[in-house]
Amino acid sequence: MIEKTNERSVKDSKHTISVLVENRPGVLARVSGLFARRGFNIASLAVSATEDPQVSRMTVVTHGDAHDLEQIIKQLNKLIDVIKILDHTGEDLVEREIALIKVQAGVDNRGEIMQLATVFRAEIVSLSPRDETIIIEITGDENKIEAFLESLAKFKIMEMVRTGKIALVRGSAMT
Amino acid sequence: MIEKTNERSVKDSKHTISVLVENRPGVLARVSGLFARRGFNIASLAVSATEDPQVSRMTVVTHGDAHDLEQIIKQLNKLIDVIKILDHTGEDLVEREIALIKVQAGVDNRGEIMQLATVFRAEIVSLSPRDETIIIEITGDENKIEAFLESLAKFKIMEMVRTGKIALVRGSAMT
Repeated sequence: MIEKTNERSVKDSKHTISVLVENRPGVLARVSGLFARRGFNIASLAVSATEDPQVSRMTVVTHGDAHDLEQIIKQLNKLIDVIKILDHTGEDLVEREIALIKVQAGVDNRGEIMQLATVFRAEIVSLSPRDETIIIEITGDENKIEAFLESLAKFKIMEMVRTGKIALVRGSAMT
Repeated sequence: MIEKTNERSVKDSKHTISVLVENRPGVLARVSGLFARRGFNIASLAVSATEDPQVSRMTVVTHGDAHDLEQIIKQLNKLIDVIKILDHTGEDLVEREIALIKVQAGVDNRGEIMQLATVFRAEIVSLSPRDETIIIEITGDENKIEAFLESLAKFKIMEMVRTGKIALVRGSAMT
């Protein structure tokens, strides 16, 4: 029974993959279409340019069955726009994400919010005294950002946007 | 003729839009499919969770004709998964992006790279003396990241990943 439990937890874990693709219209739709057809939800996605202007890099974070993901990776490999797929499961990664968080912050609670920001090395990047809002920028891995959001739970978060995770493997191995 | 020129430059400028969508499988494929069908290339895209777990926020950066983008926004508004679209053209934004850059850095040039990182307030987040690589993290708006990449032009960039831009409007106006 313990083995069974372990197996399930591995199967349903979180996966991070990087997909190097040709920088062309339609590629994103084809890649995301593959995930959609298998009912795979994408927890976060970041797509941007790389050191080669012809190539874009997509960092996909998904929750789901490892076997299903394997099937998706096989199908992705068949798309002509896909240059390379990197499954980061178990790798030693540098992982980063930014969140911008707009918080209701009057004179009463601004000090406390700024203290929290200091503890988490977050930065106040905008302050509007007139309408009593501040925008906080926080950079880190997912755990740090989640912990910071928990610490803000007693305040009113008006708006938040996150980039989703990006990752590189440490050392010279092509990730 | 001058008016004509201005019109063209406005028409072909860079656009940032935020799309608030239901957090469901398939939404990303439908949204990116709309851009693809009009041959609109997406320069960068960041999709992640918001303060509401039911809602994801997509930040899309595109280059292209303003009229075409207007048509795409109209069609996006018809998708049932789309909750709200924010066209940030001309707005006062906080914009951020992270890049992770892996650079070949031997004993000879590591000092110079670290000086550049200090100037740009970038951080060395990983250093592998054995295979002579470092990973640099830089956060900022697009101009800052581009300027940093230019300053690194004489070094060998082995690998790079960027999140793409995220943005919030300053003040309390729902962006």
